[in-house]
Amino acid sequence: MPTYKVSYFTFSGLGEPVRYTAAYCNVDFIDNRVTWEEWSKLKSTTPLGQMPILEIDGKVYHQSIPICRYLGNKFNLTGDNAEEIYEVDVAAETVNELRGKVGMWAYSCKREKNEKYEELIKKTIPSYLSKLDEQAGKNGGFLAIKDKITWADCFATGVLEYINSLVDLDVLVDYKNLQKVRENVVSSEGVKKYLKNRPAEGENPFKTW
Amino acid sequence: MPTYKVSYFTFSGLGEPVRYTAAYCNVDFIDNRVTWEEWSKLKSTTPLGQMPILEIDGKVYHQSIPICRYLGNKFNLTGDNAEEIYEVDVAAETVNELRGKVGMWAYSCKREKNEKYEELIKKTIPSYLSKLDEQAGKNGGFLAIKDKITWADCFATGVLEYINSLVDLDVLVDYKNLQKVRENVVSSEGVKKYLKNRPAEGENPFKTW
Repeated sequence: MPTYKVSYFTFSGLGEPVRYTAAYCNVDFIDNRVTWEEWSKLKSTTPLGQMPILEIDGKVYHQSIPICRYLGNKFNLTGDNAEEIYEVDVAAETVNELRGKVGMWAYSCKREKNEKYEELIKKTIPSYLSKLDEQAGKNGGFLAIKDKITWADCFATGVLEYINSLVDLDVLVDYKNLQKVRENVVSSEGVKKYLKNRPAEGENPFKTW
Repeated sequence: MPTYKVSYFTFSGLGEPVRYTAAYCNVDFIDNRVTWEEWSKLKSTTPLGQMPILEIDGKVYHQSIPICRYLGNKFNLTGDNAEEIYEVDVAAETVNELRGKVGMWAYSCKREKNEKYEELIKKTIPSYLSKLDEQAGKNGGFLAIKDKITWADCFATGVLEYINSLVDLDVLVDYKNLQKVRENVVSSEGVKKYLKNRPAEGENPFKTW
């Protein structure tokens, strides 16, 4: 059995999608939660000075979406043809685009955060989630492919949890189909095991309030 | 033969990677350059109120990276296994991350642009390009796979042209291996034909100076 190690900060962030995907794949990974002291030494050894990093027997994989897609390809959590693979990709990309927008808000200055809060909560987030929810509805509780789980579902579950931590809300409260996506991920054997042992969420020092 | 149509604004932007990839695949696509008047009507009909859009016999594909990957999968411009596919993905993702950073700078206010110009030109851009150049050197002038062109090369060529238009420089001037990547893309029959007929770059109204 190869040794898998996922390295990321002690909070959810962009590490959580990788942790969820690896857990769903029943990969018994080392959950390496990196403190700031450790990170100052580790940073220069990573490909772009960033985490998450997945190591498999020492070989380094970086960037959250490519890591999750790699695991998806390896463990058959993807589409069967170019059309299906596109659906998986575009679902993950759309979730990631929303993450980028929430992140920009969360990491901006207090004045800007106050000014833009209402637009974020009442317009930006619902405009993405309503479309993703509709799609998950059509697919029976899966984001990309009808009645089939893919890495996009695992990725989305991790990203949406990160988004929740940034806005201090459960953004899925009005989206029943996206709740089903989350449920399909967290009820799997691998993820149940991961969540049982998961350390408490650490502080995200990038968050401005 | 199915009808392909690529819709994007009249400037390079995120449309150019799709145009390059489609052209490389020898897809004889309708190059639909959308004016602002047309966009105001078209916007609400797109999946996320965004372009580029690829239509194949009317079926809509959106988001630049997923579209390029879809074309890459369809026309065999990708890796042969999970390891190679990861290399293609992470190369494209890294180029796209740089694009995001240059875009944030280019679309910020004048004061901020002035303040951050030197950091962008002397630190951010070289930190990404030097790594990508090193990789392209190892791969014989290809970004992801040794001696093999993939959609990541086409995507990168389009994105780097967009970046050039944002900073009004040729950012590749010091990066011989990335120049080879570009050369490998633009010297193909399909791209030569595309470039021969390409309209002049339109104004990018998002650019703040």
